[in-house]
Amino acid sequence: MTSLAPSVTDPHDVHRARRDRLRAALTDVGADHALIGDLVNVRYLTGFTGSNAAVAIAASGPDDDRIATDGRYVTQVSEQVPDLVGVIGRNCPAILLGGFAGGSVVAVEEHAMTVATWRALGADADAVSPSIRLVALGPRVEQLRMVKDESEIELLRQACQAADVALATIIERGVIVPGQTERQVARALEWEMYACGADDISFETIVAAGANSAVPHHRPTDAVLAAGDFVKIDFGAVVGGYHSDMTRTYVLDHAADWQREIYDLVAAAQQVGREALAPDADARGVDAAARAVIDAAGYGENYVHGLGHGVGLQIHEAPAIGASATGTLPCGAAVTVEPGVYLPGRGGVRIEDTLVVREGVPELLTTTDKSFSVI
Amino acid sequence: MTSLAPSVTDPHDVHRARRDRLRAALTDVGADHALIGDLVNVRYLTGFTGSNAAVAIAASGPDDDRIATDGRYVTQVSEQVPDLVGVIGRNCPAILLGGFAGGSVVAVEEHAMTVATWRALGADADAVSPSIRLVALGPRVEQLRMVKDESEIELLRQACQAADVALATIIERGVIVPGQTERQVARALEWEMYACGADDISFETIVAAGANSAVPHHRPTDAVLAAGDFVKIDFGAVVGGYHSDMTRTYVLDHAADWQREIYDLVAAAQQVGREALAPDADARGVDAAARAVIDAAGYGENYVHGLGHGVGLQIHEAPAIGASATGTLPCGAAVTVEPGVYLPGRGGVRIEDTLVVREGVPELLTTTDKSFSVI
Repeated sequence: MTSLAPSVTDPHDVHRARRDRLRAALTDVGADHALIGDLVNVRYLTGFTGSNAAVAIAASGPDDDRIATDGRYVTQVSEQVPDLVGVIGRNCPAILLGGFAGGSVVAVEEHAMTVATWRALGADADAVSPSIRLVALGPRVEQLRMVKDESEIELLRQACQAADVALATIIERGVIVPGQTERQVARALEWEMYACGADDISFETIVAAGANSAVPHHRPTDAVLAAGDFVKIDFGAVVGGYHSDMTRTYVLDHAADWQREIYDLVAAAQQVGREALAPDADARGVDAAARAVIDAAGYGENYVHGLGHGVGLQIHEAPAIGASATGTLPCGAAVTVEPGVYLPGRGGVRIEDTLVVREGVPELLTTTDKSFSVI
Repeated sequence: MTSLAPSVTDPHDVHRARRDRLRAALTDVGADHALIGDLVNVRYLTGFTGSNAAVAIAASGPDDDRIATDGRYVTQVSEQVPDLVGVIGRNCPAILLGGFAGGSVVAVEEHAMTVATWRALGADADAVSPSIRLVALGPRVEQLRMVKDESEIELLRQACQAADVALATIIERGVIVPGQTERQVARALEWEMYACGADDISFETIVAAGANSAVPHHRPTDAVLAAGDFVKIDFGAVVGGYHSDMTRTYVLDHAADWQREIYDLVAAAQQVGREALAPDADARGVDAAARAVIDAAGYGENYVHGLGHGVGLQIHEAPAIGASATGTLPCGAAVTVEPGVYLPGRGGVRIEDTLVVREGVPELLTTTDKSFSVI
């Protein structure tokens, strides 16, 4: 059984420990270096937040690790990553590759590297380094990122709290009422998240009223909220790079029977999904457990997406929880549980929380009430 | 000499004309189909804005063009792209490839396609389609995107106007004053851009006060603005998918001589850069003209980035205007001109406009006053 990654306090120690975990995986791959060009993975391994960088992790040990970035980030890289030797230049992967010994085997992130970059590194010819061989690293860093340490969970907690407080604030201020537009609600919510300490919003805020609530990923428009509407709100805050994700669906003014019926159904499915979260649970099985509730009620065709996804430095990351997911949920994974039922032309309901998989019950990070609410 | 792309009013006509221009390029590449997976390019060619899609353009003619997206976007794709046959499924490039005749040559965007996707298409093995050969399309769509038509320029104009009005509003309201934090200024500016009709912000707003203004890409912090500070503000609005980009630098309360000196220098360089914009001007030459002004004053080492970049559906797109740029500026290109001088530990100035390259003088889209201002 997987346990939580050890919690350490100095951020440089955290990053060094992550690099060491990747280094340990290099033996399996049979590589001398890992060349990491995905910027989120670079941030995870080093703390560097610039927009152009690559990191090389050496099987031979931490003294041979390097970070490359360009001239705009000379000061920033020395401040954020004082414990790694920095190399400055525009084409980061090529610069790092140039520093490897002839005959090296270099593992690259084929799922994040473009064919053009890969060709430029000489992968299919003897363009740059005829004696260096590129192999596939696979999503190793993404796998490490699945298991959050306590410092990461604390940032997720803060991000979820900013979202919780922001939503409560705009409800209290009477923003989600007939007469307001979807856009006005979205902007007010984002403003409050910033006021609550968010560095950014997690993704384009979804506010979908009336028939628009039946569109899973509706973009807020100037549509005016009306009495009797479902209002579906899917949004999140970013704190320290970590993303929260929550959906709540309300009814305005007065509810019809069909609205209560599908709300209760989605709520029941969501509860089953949350309760199925456990260390080593099969990701597809968790999806299936929640989906069975909706299928049994005859609304299976109106639930058109997976149950959830990992969250962290990205709004969507491993593990996926869906019908075609593979693998199990590690202890320490942060995931969403978000079933929905969408009736085209009428309206839809989605209820979503962000949780951490723990021994025993999962930890609920988004704490906004989700009982059926007419506001 | 290049002329502006023809202006047509029906958006479907616009998209069809763009696909026809790409189709015409297929002969040069020697391909039967172009397989476009970059989502910005998909939007440019079809108007589709979903988060998973690919488009196939056929040398044989428009009837054989296809768009693929997944189940979440069935309604959206039929509304946004009624003039193309849609194919539904998760792995869009593979689905489209599956529809091509055996023996086809397919041009793919190697600069936007990951090695993993490329391998999965059978590019280096006989995984999926042994008889189909993949070749490199190159950045053909990005080249088409360089020349904006009048409908695109109108959206850029609206985006720039939203930014202009938002900045004027927060200055008038006394937001950019000693005692406010960088974050507060950034949030107020973003709020006003939304109020002015922005759909989104172009990128993370930069507000950098005092010594922070010497960091080219500073992230707003809780640092408090103080009298005598430079305040550098780099921001933009998105309207209809098109991005504005503008930087203004002010001095708070009272200015020192060194501040006026570097401001005037950057302003002079920026003017030279703007005046060098002309159809068929060498991109590197435009950069060099502005850079020479700063070099001559002895501040060359404090100007650490290129002069500008194209803007459009992306905040950074072709053409680049810098020391290592290649090619010329077509008539109809929308670009930034943004020299800067940064004195570490003291402060920095950047002045940036968005303009359209036109016959005669370029069209200035960002119209906020840029004379030296103490506010």
